[in-house]
Amino acid sequence: MANLHLDLIQQALAEDGAEADVTTLSTVPLEQQTQANIIVRQAGVIAGLAIAVATFRELDQRISIETLLQDGAVVQPGQVLALISGPARSVLSAERVALNFLGHLSGIATLTAKCVRALEGSEARILDTRKTTPGLRSLEKEAVRLGGGQNHRFNLSDGVLIKDNHIKAAGGISLAISLARRQAPHLLKIEVECETLIEVREALEAEADVILLDNMHVDTMRSAVEFIRRASPKVLIEASGSIGTNPVKLASVAATGVDFISLGAITHSAPQLDVSLEFD
Amino acid sequence: MANLHLDLIQQALAEDGAEADVTTLSTVPLEQQTQANIIVRQAGVIAGLAIAVATFRELDQRISIETLLQDGAVVQPGQVLALISGPARSVLSAERVALNFLGHLSGIATLTAKCVRALEGSEARILDTRKTTPGLRSLEKEAVRLGGGQNHRFNLSDGVLIKDNHIKAAGGISLAISLARRQAPHLLKIEVECETLIEVREALEAEADVILLDNMHVDTMRSAVEFIRRASPKVLIEASGSIGTNPVKLASVAATGVDFISLGAITHSAPQLDVSLEFD
Amino acid sequence: MANLHLDLIQQALAEDGAEADVTTLSTVPLEQQTQANIIVRQAGVIAGLAIAVATFRELDQRISIETLLQDGAVVQPGQVLALISGPARSVLSAERVALNFLGHLSGIATLTAKCVRALEGSEARILDTRKTTPGLRSLEKEAVRLGGGQNHRFNLSDGVLIKDNHIKAAGGISLAISLARRQAPHLLKIEVECETLIEVREALEAEADVILLDNMHVDTMRSAVEFIRRASPKVLIEASGSIGTNPVKLASVAATGVDFISLGAITHSAPQLDVSLEFD
Amino acid sequence: MANLHLDLIQQALAEDGAEADVTTLSTVPLEQQTQANIIVRQAGVIAGLAIAVATFRELDQRISIETLLQDGAVVQPGQVLALISGPARSVLSAERVALNFLGHLSGIATLTAKCVRALEGSEARILDTRKTTPGLRSLEKEAVRLGGGQNHRFNLSDGVLIKDNHIKAAGGISLAISLARRQAPHLLKIEVECETLIEVREALEAEADVILLDNMHVDTMRSAVEFIRRASPKVLIEASGSIGTNPVKLASVAATGVDFISLGAITHSAPQLDVSLEFD
Amino acid sequence: MANLHLDLIQQALAEDGAEADVTTLSTVPLEQQTQANIIVRQAGVIAGLAIAVATFRELDQRISIETLLQDGAVVQPGQVLALISGPARSVLSAERVALNFLGHLSGIATLTAKCVRALEGSEARILDTRKTTPGLRSLEKEAVRLGGGQNHRFNLSDGVLIKDNHIKAAGGISLAISLARRQAPHLLKIEVECETLIEVREALEAEADVILLDNMHVDTMRSAVEFIRRASPKVLIEASGSIGTNPVKLASVAATGVDFISLGAITHSAPQLDVSLEFD
Amino acid sequence: MANLHLDLIQQALAEDGAEADVTTLSTVPLEQQTQANIIVRQAGVIAGLAIAVATFRELDQRISIETLLQDGAVVQPGQVLALISGPARSVLSAERVALNFLGHLSGIATLTAKCVRALEGSEARILDTRKTTPGLRSLEKEAVRLGGGQNHRFNLSDGVLIKDNHIKAAGGISLAISLARRQAPHLLKIEVECETLIEVREALEAEADVILLDNMHVDTMRSAVEFIRRASPKVLIEASGSIGTNPVKLASVAATGVDFISLGAITHSAPQLDVSLEFD
Repeated sequence: MANLHLDLIQQALAEDGAEADVTTLSTVPLEQQTQANIIVRQAGVIAGLAIAVATFRELDQRISIETLLQDGAVVQPGQVLALISGPARSVLSAERVALNFLGHLSGIATLTAKCVRALEGSEARILDTRKTTPGLRSLEKEAVRLGGGQNHRFNLSDGVLIKDNHIKAAGGISLAISLARRQAPHLLKIEVECETLIEVREALEAEADVILLDNMHVDTMRSAVEFIRRASPKVLIEASGSIGTNPVKLASVAATGVDFISLGAITHSAPQLDVSLEFD
Repeated sequence: MANLHLDLIQQALAEDGAEADVTTLSTVPLEQQTQANIIVRQAGVIAGLAIAVATFRELDQRISIETLLQDGAVVQPGQVLALISGPARSVLSAERVALNFLGHLSGIATLTAKCVRALEGSEARILDTRKTTPGLRSLEKEAVRLGGGQNHRFNLSDGVLIKDNHIKAAGGISLAISLARRQAPHLLKIEVECETLIEVREALEAEADVILLDNMHVDTMRSAVEFIRRASPKVLIEASGSIGTNPVKLASVAATGVDFISLGAITHSAPQLDVSLEFD
Repeated sequence: MANLHLDLIQQALAEDGAEADVTTLSTVPLEQQTQANIIVRQAGVIAGLAIAVATFRELDQRISIETLLQDGAVVQPGQVLALISGPARSVLSAERVALNFLGHLSGIATLTAKCVRALEGSEARILDTRKTTPGLRSLEKEAVRLGGGQNHRFNLSDGVLIKDNHIKAAGGISLAISLARRQAPHLLKIEVECETLIEVREALEAEADVILLDNMHVDTMRSAVEFIRRASPKVLIEASGSIGTNPVKLASVAATGVDFISLGAITHSAPQLDVSLEFD
Repeated sequence: MANLHLDLIQQALAEDGAEADVTTLSTVPLEQQTQANIIVRQAGVIAGLAIAVATFRELDQRISIETLLQDGAVVQPGQVLALISGPARSVLSAERVALNFLGHLSGIATLTAKCVRALEGSEARILDTRKTTPGLRSLEKEAVRLGGGQNHRFNLSDGVLIKDNHIKAAGGISLAISLARRQAPHLLKIEVECETLIEVREALEAEADVILLDNMHVDTMRSAVEFIRRASPKVLIEASGSIGTNPVKLASVAATGVDFISLGAITHSAPQLDVSLEFD
Repeated sequence: MANLHLDLIQQALAEDGAEADVTTLSTVPLEQQTQANIIVRQAGVIAGLAIAVATFRELDQRISIETLLQDGAVVQPGQVLALISGPARSVLSAERVALNFLGHLSGIATLTAKCVRALEGSEARILDTRKTTPGLRSLEKEAVRLGGGQNHRFNLSDGVLIKDNHIKAAGGISLAISLARRQAPHLLKIEVECETLIEVREALEAEADVILLDNMHVDTMRSAVEFIRRASPKVLIEASGSIGTNPVKLASVAATGVDFISLGAITHSAPQLDVSLEFD
Repeated sequence: MANLHLDLIQQALAEDGAEADVTTLSTVPLEQQTQANIIVRQAGVIAGLAIAVATFRELDQRISIETLLQDGAVVQPGQVLALISGPARSVLSAERVALNFLGHLSGIATLTAKCVRALEGSEARILDTRKTTPGLRSLEKEAVRLGGGQNHRFNLSDGVLIKDNHIKAAGGISLAISLARRQAPHLLKIEVECETLIEVREALEAEADVILLDNMHVDTMRSAVEFIRRASPKVLIEASGSIGTNPVKLASVAATGVDFISLGAITHSAPQLDVSLEFD
C-alpha cells in the first residue's frame, strides 16, 4: 500500500532537494549505471522496505529493485535486503530519504520485537500508543505490528479511553463511564485509567470493559489484577505509564498477570536501525 | 514561522482523528472551560513549543495560551512551560498531537545539548546530518540549533559532500574534486569523505575545502588532523561515522583537534523528552 | 473546528471559479457594500452553518457574519439563519459554495431527525454507516449527530464488523470471531453480520459482542431479538439492510426490540434542505 | 481521466482508514486471493465506474479488474458491472470507497435519465446547476452528461447569469446587461433571470441572449415563451426554480416551449443507486 | 482574495528555503526590527501587491505593511509602493518571493497597458490567451485586467473556440459549428478560427458568433472585416496569431476594424517590472 | 524526474479545465484517434519536453509519445520534437498546458544559451538568480543548466550572500562576515555584495570567499577585478546588477575578468520559445 504514502515520499524527496543533488550532478556522469545493495548493519526486524523501494522508484522509474526479503523479516548484521540497479545519479539522490524511512521504521520494529521477547512465557502482549511522530502514524503502527506488537488506538475515534482529565471534566469515574456508554459509538469498549485500587473498584462497579493501571508500583499492580480477575473475569487489563523497554522490568510487569503492556517508547524513543547502501 | 507548518499540523490532527474524539465528545460537556498547564517531566532543552501552541490554536482558535518561556529554554523537571485556557473538549482533543511535536523536538534539542556539553573545553562543534525523520527536517534542524548544535546541509543542494560512492562513480578522489569544482554552484565548498591517510592526502592535493574523517580510530584521526593542519591550515575537518552520543567518546574525538563532529544520532535516535498536560 | 476543513473550502471555491465570477465582476461595482440574510425555505435541522460562515470569510475576510442560531437548531420555513454584511462582490461570489455546504449537510441532519422521531417511544437509536460522500465523511457524520443520530464506525479502524465476505474468507463465523478476538485492537467490540437465525446462534456461541441482523424480515428479526436477549442479555443488536427512511417501517423495526437501526440513506440519499441568500 | 481525481481517491481512502482495516487484517489471511463481482441492485444508468476501478487499483495495483460495460450504460437489477480479482484483503479494504463513488454518481446519472425521459416528445433539454457537492463538481457534471443531461455553467467564469441580487446591485436589468456586455468575456452569452413578464420585456429590449424564467407558474411561462419567440426568435429560454423531478410536472413545463429546464435536484438530491460487491 | 493563493505562497516560500535563510540567521540579530520600503524602479502598472503583502505576512504575522497604492496603480520610477515594518529577519527572508510575485505580475500588467495604449483611438480591445505560466493563471489574468486588457477564456470550459485541429477532427467548419451548437453549454458563444476568406464565409454561413482571423496579412484582415460587417453585423471579430506587442503593428491591426486583438505575448513573454526592497 | 512535478502538472491541467473542454467534447468524436507532431517554430534550446510528455500522459495514459530529441537539444525552426498518437480528444485537451510548460522553459534555455554564447572566448560563466517564477524554481533552474548556464543558489539555505540590507543590519561588512563565518553552515562560502572599491577592500580584509560586484560601471569593475586578483587570487568574482542580456554588454563585462555574471533576466524576463502542435 506504498501508493497511499506517495505524498509523504514526494515531500521527503523535495525537502532533501533530491532534484538538485549538486554533488551527484557534478561528479557522476549522466549515463552511468550502477548496481548497489541495501545492507543492514545491526541485528533487528525490518520495516519500511516497501516504502524505501517506492522512494527510489518515485524519483526514477528506471531504477529496478529486487527485494531479498520482506518487511517483518528478522535480520543479522551484514545481511543484504535488496539489490538495486539503475542510473547511478538517481540511486544516489534517493538514497538518504529511502534509508531514513527504512532505518526509522526498522528501529521501531526492532525495539518492539525486543520488548515482545521479554514477555515470552507470559500471556501479556505489547501495545503501542498514540505517541507517534506527526505525519507517520500509520507507518509507525505498521512497524509495531511487524515487530510482533499489537496496535492500541489508531486515533481518537477508535476507542474510549477515559483518562484523569476526562474524569475531572465529567465529575467522576462512574459518571464518565455512564456518559460514554450512552453516547460513544456502540462498537467501542470503554477503558478507564486508574491510579489506585479505589479507582479500580469504582471503574469495575461502573462496568468498564478495560482497566488501565497507570503508573502503579508492581506490587499494587499485582493486587489490582487479582482484584479485577476475581470481581470481573472478562475485564481486560492494560499496564501503562513510564514502564520503559527494560526486559527485566517488562517481565516483572507481565508477571502481574496483565493482558497488555502499552509502551510509548517503542514509537517515540526507538533508535534507528543502521542500514546503508553500498555500490558494487 | 509556525505558519509554514500548518499543513503538517493539520495532517497530524487529521491522522489523530481530533475531530472525532469519542471519549471527549461523550464525557466532557460542550460548554466546559478548562485551565491546564504544559509541564515538563525531565530536565532538558525545549523545542517545538511554538508548534505545540499552533497545534492547539489550529484545532480551536478560542484556546488561548500563555507561554512562560521560549523554544531554546533549559528546563528542570516539573517546570511549567505554558498555561492553556479554553474549551475543555478542544484542549483534550489537541493534546496528544501538540505533545508529540513538543516531546519529539525537545528530545532532539536535549540530546544535542548533552553532546555539546561533552565538547566543552574544545573548539569542536556538533553538527547534525540529513538523517532526519521524513517530513520533519526543518523542524528537527531547528531543534538541533536550539540545543546548541550547528546545521550541516539542509539538503542535497547546499553543499558538495563527496562520499565513497561518488568517488567510485567519478573514478577517484582527484577527479571527483575537479569535476565538482568545475560544475557545482560556486558558493559551495567541497568536502570529501576519507577513510585513510592516503585518501586524506589525495583530497588535500586536489584542494578539498573540507575533509570528513569517516569511521577512523581516534589515533588515526589524530594523525590525520596533524597532517592536515600542517599541509593546509585553512582546511576544515569534520569527524563522522558511528561516533554516537557517549560524552567520553565525544570528548576523545574532540581532543584530536577536529573542527566538527557530525552525529546522526541526535536526530535519528533521540528519545523524546517527557512532557505532559495537566488540568488545574 | 471549521479550520480543519479549510482545504476543502478552498478547493470548493476554486472549482466554482469564485475568483473569476464574470457576472459579478462586470455588473457589481467594486466598492458596493451589501447586507444579506441566509434564509431557510423548509423546516428542518441545521448543519454546516459554521462551514458556510467559514466559506464566506475564506473568500474575503472583510465579510462579517452574525449567526442567529447554531448548528443543530430546529428551524421553520422563512427563518433567518445569519446576517451577512460586506463587499457585495465577495458575498455573491461565495454564495453558491457556502449554500452547497449548508444545504447538503442540513439535508442530512433533517432526514436523520425525521428518522429519529419515528423511533420515539422505543429504545432504538439511529446509526449512520460508512456510505458517505467521498471527502465529506467527518462533516456528514457530524450532521448525523446534529440530527440526533449516533455515529457507527468513522472508518475501518474503529470497530470490527465481520461481514459475509469476511466470513467466507475466514472460513466461517466462529473462526472469524476468534481470529478477530486474538488480533484486533483490544478496545474494539466484535460485531457480526447475520442473515439467518442459524448464523445468529453461531455468532452468539462464538461470543460476538454485537449482532447485526441484515436484511431480515421483521418477523424473523423479532425472533432473533428474543433469542439473543434470552441467550446473551448483554449483546447489542443492530438492524440493517435496505430499511429505508419510511417512518412506519422504522417504527416496526424498532418494535422488534433492536438497540440500533443503521441507515445508509441518511447520508447517501438525503435530499438537500432548501436555503437561500437574499439581499436586503 | 481518472488520473485527475487521484487526490480525491487518496483522500477518500485515507478518511476511510483503508490502511488500518482491523476486521480484514484480523480475519482474512495475507495471501488469500479472491474473485468478486460488482453488481447493481437497481435499474439505472452507470457513472463513476472508472473512478471505482481507479480506487481499487490505487489501494493495491495487484488488483485487476475487467469492466463488462462502460460509464453511461443503462443497467438492470442484478447486472454485473465488473469482475475483480486480486488480494482479498485489498479488495475488501477498498470496497466501500469504490462503491460510494459508484453509487453516488450513478444515482445522479439515473435521476437525470429519468428526467430526460420525461421530456421525450418535446425539444426541451435537461440542464444541471452549480448546486453540486463540494469537491465533486466535475464528477457530478460528468454523471449528468452520462444520464443524457446537458451541463449549465461549470463555474462562475463560464457564463454570465444575471440574477436578482446582481440586478439590485447594478441598478436594474438594462443597466446590468449593458455593463456585462461591455466587460464580460466576449465568448459568453448573457442570461437574465426574470420572474415577471415585465422583466422579460426589459431583458429582451436590452438584448439579453438567454432568458431564465424563474419560479413562474406554467401559464405565465407559456405566455412568456410566446412573447419571447415573437419578439426575439433567436433568444434561448430556460425554465428554473423548484421544478423538481416529477415527470408530469416536467412534461408540463416542457410543453410551454422552453429550450431548457435546469434542475438542482439531479445533483443535490439524487438518491444513490444501489451497488454491491459480492465474492464468488 | 489573496487567501485563495496561500497554498502557492507557502509553496514559493518553501522552495526558497525561507525558513533556513542562513545569511540572515547568521548576520541579523533575532530581536532586530526594521523599516523598509518597496520601491518600483521602472514606470509601469502594479499587479501582485496584495499577494506580496500576503507573502510577508504568511512568513511572519508580526510584519505590518502599509500599502500606499493599490493593484492597478500607474507608477513612476522611484515611487514607494508600501512601507514595511517588523522583525528584520523575517522581512529579509520573505523579500525575494514577495518581489518575484510583484515583479512578474506587474510586468504583465505593464506590457498589457502598453498594448492597450497602442489601440487608443480605435474601438479594438486587447485580449489575453490561455498561454499563461502553469499554476499562475488566475493571477496572470487578473494582471491583464489591471493593465486594461480583457480576459479571453479562463479555461477550456468557458468558451467554444474551434481551431484547425477541431475542424479537421469534425470534418469541416460547418459540421464543427453545428455539433458545437447542439452540444456545448448554451451560455457559450461559438468562435471559429479562420485563415482565409473562404473559411470566413463558411463560418458565417454556419452562423458562428465570433470569427477569429488567424495569422492574416493586414490587407486580408481588412477585407475579411468588411465582408463580415456587411454579411453579419452582429458577429464579433478577433485578430490573433503572432501579432506581437509592437505599437505600430498593433495600431495597424486595430485599424482594420476588428473588435479584439488577442496577444499571447502579454502573458508568456512579459519582462518583469523592476521592484526592490530598501531598508531605511 | 517528471514524477516529482505531477502535482504541478495536475494543478495546471485543473486550472485549464482540461476535463471540461467543451469545444473538443462537442466537435471531436469520442473514438477518434489522432497523430500529431510537436514542432518548434523558432531556433533555440529545448527544455521542458519531459514535462510536456508527462502532461499528455497524466491526462490520458493511452496517449503514446515518441520523442525525437531530448531536453537540451539545439533546434531549428520547423524541427519536429515529438510524435504523438492517441485519442484525439485527450491530445487536444492537454495541448495548451503541455505547450505552456515547453514554451516557457525552452524560452529560458534559449535566452541562457544566447548569453552563454556572448561570453565565448572568456572564462566567465553565466549564473542564474533566485528571481524565478513562484512554484517553478527547480524547473527553471534546470532550464538554465540545459542552456549552458550554471546555477547560483537554489534557495536561501545554500549559500551565504551578504547584501546591503544584511550589512546594515549587522553593522558593517567585517562584522557581517565574521558573524557568518561563525554561524553559517561550514560547507557554504561567504559572498559579499560590494558597490564600491572601498567595500571590496573591506570584504577582502574580512576574508570573503566570493565578491559580488553590484551595479558597477565596467571601468570600476575592471579596477576591482585587478585589485582582487592581486590581493587574494583565490577569491571568486561575480558581476551582477541590471546587466541584461545584450551580447555586447555581456562581452564587455566578461572582458573585465570576472568569473561569473549573474542574470535575473534569463529567468524573469525570457520570452517563450514558439512551439506548436499539428495534427497530421
